Amino acid sequence: MNPSQTQVPDDNQEHAVVLLSGGLDSATVLAMAQAQGLVCHPLAVDYGQRHRSELEAAQRVAAAAGTELKVLQLDLRAIGGSALTDDIDVPEQAGAGIPVTYVPARNTVMLSLALGYAEVLDAGVIAIGVNAVDYSGYPDCRPEFIEAFEATANLATRAAVEGRRLQVLTPLIHLSKAEIIRAGTGLGVDYALTVSCYQADEDGRACGRCDSCRIRRAGFDAAGVADPTRYRAGASPTG
Amino acid sequence: MNPSQTQVPDDNQEHAVVLLSGGLDSATVLAMAQAQGLVCHPLAVDYGQRHRSELEAAQRVAAAAGTELKVLQLDLRAIGGSALTDDIDVPEQAGAGIPVTYVPARNTVMLSLALGYAEVLDAGVIAIGVNAVDYSGYPDCRPEFIEAFEATANLATRAAVEGRRLQVLTPLIHLSKAEIIRAGTGLGVDYALTVSCYQADEDGRACGRCDSCRIRRAGFDAAGVADPTRYRAGASPTG
Repeated sequence: MNPSQTQVPDDNQEHAVVLLSGGLDSATVLAMAQAQGLVCHPLAVDYGQRHRSELEAAQRVAAAAGTELKVLQLDLRAIGGSALTDDIDVPEQAGAGIPVTYVPARNTVMLSLALGYAEVLDAGVIAIGVNAVDYSGYPDCRPEFIEAFEATANLATRAAVEGRRLQVLTPLIHLSKAEIIRAGTGLGVDYALTVSCYQADEDGRACGRCDSCRIRRAGFDAAGVADPTRYRAGASPTG
Repeated sequence: MNPSQTQVPDDNQEHAVVLLSGGLDSATVLAMAQAQGLVCHPLAVDYGQRHRSELEAAQRVAAAAGTELKVLQLDLRAIGGSALTDDIDVPEQAGAGIPVTYVPARNTVMLSLALGYAEVLDAGVIAIGVNAVDYSGYPDCRPEFIEAFEATANLATRAAVEGRRLQVLTPLIHLSKAEIIRAGTGLGVDYALTVSCYQADEDGRACGRCDSCRIRRAGFDAAGVADPTRYRAGASPTG
């Protein structure tokens, strides 16, 4: 695979835009899409995350897969509404309902940007690591949301007008965290490159205590795979 | 109306996010939404337009309506694909099919960002100035696209999960440019504040020759309304 492949395809291979966050799930999606024979174009959105370490992880994951990451800047802090982009404290334990770490219309925005990039590349696939099992109450991780977005995308673009279908791939949607980790491990994903922690330090080391760290740690335990996560000194993981 | 109203509403009035570009159409939508009694929150997206004059026009239009403009930064130039954000020359005459001034997935992206802002504000309406009559071949200006996006939005958000419907208003969708201008003039819109030209100068003065200028000029002629557009010296409008 050509790492600098970012032009409109002139071959017979199907091309895919893969939304990459730097976390465990999207790194697995990238490996799965490549294993399907898709030529992958990872896309990360810098929406004012608290930590640059997420984007640095996305860069590492893209490079390890022999792909080139595109980063779009979008400052969602201008409209506020989430602990991930505002100055609200990140909670250490999940409560009932939708968590305060919810980013308004996040997946709608991410998929829309991926759609724009797919249109420029003439790619027929968008892949996203949404998960309806460990989804923590985010409404835009449900299958019915993805189906509705796909229908919208197929009315939105030049490709749609010309009769070319766009498909939204969600290979993780019905998998548990342990199943995701086992699948990725089988495909050679190096999870030490990824960062899931909501409050990772500047070097990408995890706190071991936030919701995201707990779910990740429990996933490695359930999968029977050694946890390669780099934790901060003194941060004992509690899976 | 309170010009600084940007908080979550605690009154009984319905709130609306209004996408504002600085052009004639969206200025009319803002006036129509206010005339309906909606508390309006204009949103502009700075997606790497060639000219700051568009955003300055949006600021003027928002201020004239007693509202406060929110501007989101999104650099779509990173993914390319349009004469409006790339270094492709803007054509002076419309050809067949979709024009090169098409911005990939533009309205999907704009509506998604409006959806995020609507969620933060707890607004139940998004208003956008799409038009299926003078739409120049943009697929994401068609009624079926808007309906699909609205269905997606109603699956995407916290409000949707809680059973609160979101409505996408498109009051211009079946109007001719002349009908839009007559409606806006009746509502007191000052079109001298707006900029439609694809290649306006730094002061927002129009070229009089690009597709957008021609359609606008012809609209004022057909409406029987004096054209208040500020043209560049030596740029004789050809409507």
